[in-house]
Amino acid sequence: MMSKYRLMSPGPTPIPPEVSATGALPIIHHRTPEFGEVFTRVGENLKRVFMTRNDIFVYAASGTGAFEGALQNLFSPGDKVLVVNNGNFGERWAKMGRAFGLEVTELVYEWGQKADNAEVADALSADPGIKAAVCVLSETSTGTVNDIEGFAKATENVVTIVDAVSGLGACELRTDEWGVDVVVAGSQKALMTPPGLGFVSVSERAWRAHQEAAMPRFYFDWTQAKKASQKNPPQTPWTPPVSLVMQLDVALGQILDEGLENVLERHVLLGRAARAGVKGMGLRLFGPDEDMNTAVTAAWVPDEIDGKRFVNTLFQEHGVQVAGGQGKMSGKIFRIGHCGYFDAYDIIATIAAAELTLESLGYPVELGKGVAAAQRVFSKSGVAA
Amino acid sequence: MMSKYRLMSPGPTPIPPEVSATGALPIIHHRTPEFGEVFTRVGENLKRVFMTRNDIFVYAASGTGAFEGALQNLFSPGDKVLVVNNGNFGERWAKMGRAFGLEVTELVYEWGQKADNAEVADALSADPGIKAAVCVLSETSTGTVNDIEGFAKATENVVTIVDAVSGLGACELRTDEWGVDVVVAGSQKALMTPPGLGFVSVSERAWRAHQEAAMPRFYFDWTQAKKASQKNPPQTPWTPPVSLVMQLDVALGQILDEGLENVLERHVLLGRAARAGVKGMGLRLFGPDEDMNTAVTAAWVPDEIDGKRFVNTLFQEHGVQVAGGQGKMSGKIFRIGHCGYFDAYDIIATIAAAELTLESLGYPVELGKGVAAAQRVFSKSGVAA
Repeated sequence: MMSKYRLMSPGPTPIPPEVSATGALPIIHHRTPEFGEVFTRVGENLKRVFMTRNDIFVYAASGTGAFEGALQNLFSPGDKVLVVNNGNFGERWAKMGRAFGLEVTELVYEWGQKADNAEVADALSADPGIKAAVCVLSETSTGTVNDIEGFAKATENVVTIVDAVSGLGACELRTDEWGVDVVVAGSQKALMTPPGLGFVSVSERAWRAHQEAAMPRFYFDWTQAKKASQKNPPQTPWTPPVSLVMQLDVALGQILDEGLENVLERHVLLGRAARAGVKGMGLRLFGPDEDMNTAVTAAWVPDEIDGKRFVNTLFQEHGVQVAGGQGKMSGKIFRIGHCGYFDAYDIIATIAAAELTLESLGYPVELGKGVAAAQRVFSKSGVAA
Repeated sequence: MMSKYRLMSPGPTPIPPEVSATGALPIIHHRTPEFGEVFTRVGENLKRVFMTRNDIFVYAASGTGAFEGALQNLFSPGDKVLVVNNGNFGERWAKMGRAFGLEVTELVYEWGQKADNAEVADALSADPGIKAAVCVLSETSTGTVNDIEGFAKATENVVTIVDAVSGLGACELRTDEWGVDVVVAGSQKALMTPPGLGFVSVSERAWRAHQEAAMPRFYFDWTQAKKASQKNPPQTPWTPPVSLVMQLDVALGQILDEGLENVLERHVLLGRAARAGVKGMGLRLFGPDEDMNTAVTAAWVPDEIDGKRFVNTLFQEHGVQVAGGQGKMSGKIFRIGHCGYFDAYDIIATIAAAELTLESLGYPVELGKGVAAAQRVFSKSGVAA
């Protein structure tokens, strides 16, 4: 039987039809007033979604590129940085810091565990030479969301850097209210835009660190980006991905039309329903069972079943693309992404397909039980009663 | 009167309707067999267009980002590099080299002048410590195309690096036959794809230089890119811009269907017609009047006319978007881009609109004279007789 493709991975994510259609418009030049208007609006709307008045720069890059830019712009070789590592991405930033000659103090937690902000504060007290601290908002590899409000408090005397690539627009992140100096994000998660754009927001404190930062840089240089952004209309120093920026403009418009607080609440429900569905079909969640976990739901594949086979069957037989485990969790867990353009019935279809997959792989499952659990979440909330 | 938008700039450039339409397809995951098939074919077809068997890596980045990656991957701080600077981009690479701590020997030529490869050879003989040499294929700021075959010969004992961002697919570049070690390119010029992808090709000699290169790097790291490319199907280390890659796949298919040699010949005619048209309407070309100049035609704006006003009128009154001068040539010259998805009538419409613009700005022009000169080029060639 024909089955539709349902992208339920934590990035790239599906995009709204209006965003897709915008991708088919003819290319316009980046120095036209027309593009200037789009880029100005994108800049203003990004600030609303980042909840900040800080500068925000847009790169042709993945989130990893924008993060590398942050390191180049904030540090000199030999500088000390604290990195929270409770998953694949925390691990990546520690590795990247070392590649750039930073002295990295790594706070390592088990995958699926949250960072302990008291330990973060202790580590900073123990070494006053540390200039900045890095934490991931939503650790895509595990679904675990760290308490960034607490992290920002624990790191208030240093530059606070947050990787919000899969979190921004799905998890609460009050950049200015909480005092987060640098936020790195990407287009392809909750911002409902194709991959290819990276973002960074830069506070006053981060600008001060930048003044002293001697790390060589050019492409990602904040000073050049700032100079270009001060033109009228604002520009980028190098050719921007005009089609992606125009798509982002439409996506940001939709997010703000829905209302950012409503978007965040929707993600709370999506996460809650996904967790209820997973537990309802008899599987064990990976990581904390918390309403904070709004972007990705991770769960153990039952021991009796090969994890890769589960993910492949779900995709090949049912068209539902979830992600397997990354790194050391490969083959052991699966991850349902629900950051961005997702509604109640995306979750319900995913749980229904997962139930059918478990059945076909010989795992004892009562069809509809996980689905009903997910339905109840929406029913209770009045969203899809 | 309504006028259509005609993008005649040297990047971004217009893209074929089929490439546009592909931009409206739903996002697929980058680890699907479907994307794997596309990415495999893109890799093979890029090699055909680059005329190389060397490794080619695809980045989420503009050409400037891919170039920065080349510097990070080839050098250690303090290394010596020769940079030919005969325009805005040559100047940029010299500046970037210094930003990354390289000792840059700069061969500076007047804008619009070609590099003298005998001087390149002399400069290398004078300092055997120089490890690599950089030259721009098509200097977008002036339209001048450097003799890369000669440059590769002059630099045969060092790593030869060519910026082919606006040249690749428009100007002859026989990477392997000529012995070019590193070629940097971008999606948004003659490859008829939206901006947002950068490329680099890496020869055996470049790989040897890479082994000794101690410059810190991560996002653009060739070793990581190589490792990902050796998976089956080939991958990128970070999330690739899937929609842009799918558009590139369609564009490369069209280039190879037309036939690369035919594409290059078409560009010779486009350049010849643009130059004939410019001279026919009584303007002076900027840079050499040579068939090599296939990507961009630059010309002086007459002294009596304000250069920015000319470019703006052409755009606002006629919908034809050419580029003004960059840097020190700002307001003095204008540039017609014709690298990529352009045919005879794009050139003819541009010349016709330029004639009407000159007339409306009070400059003495005989309407149709430039157009006829352009027509004659196509007529002689039998292309649009």
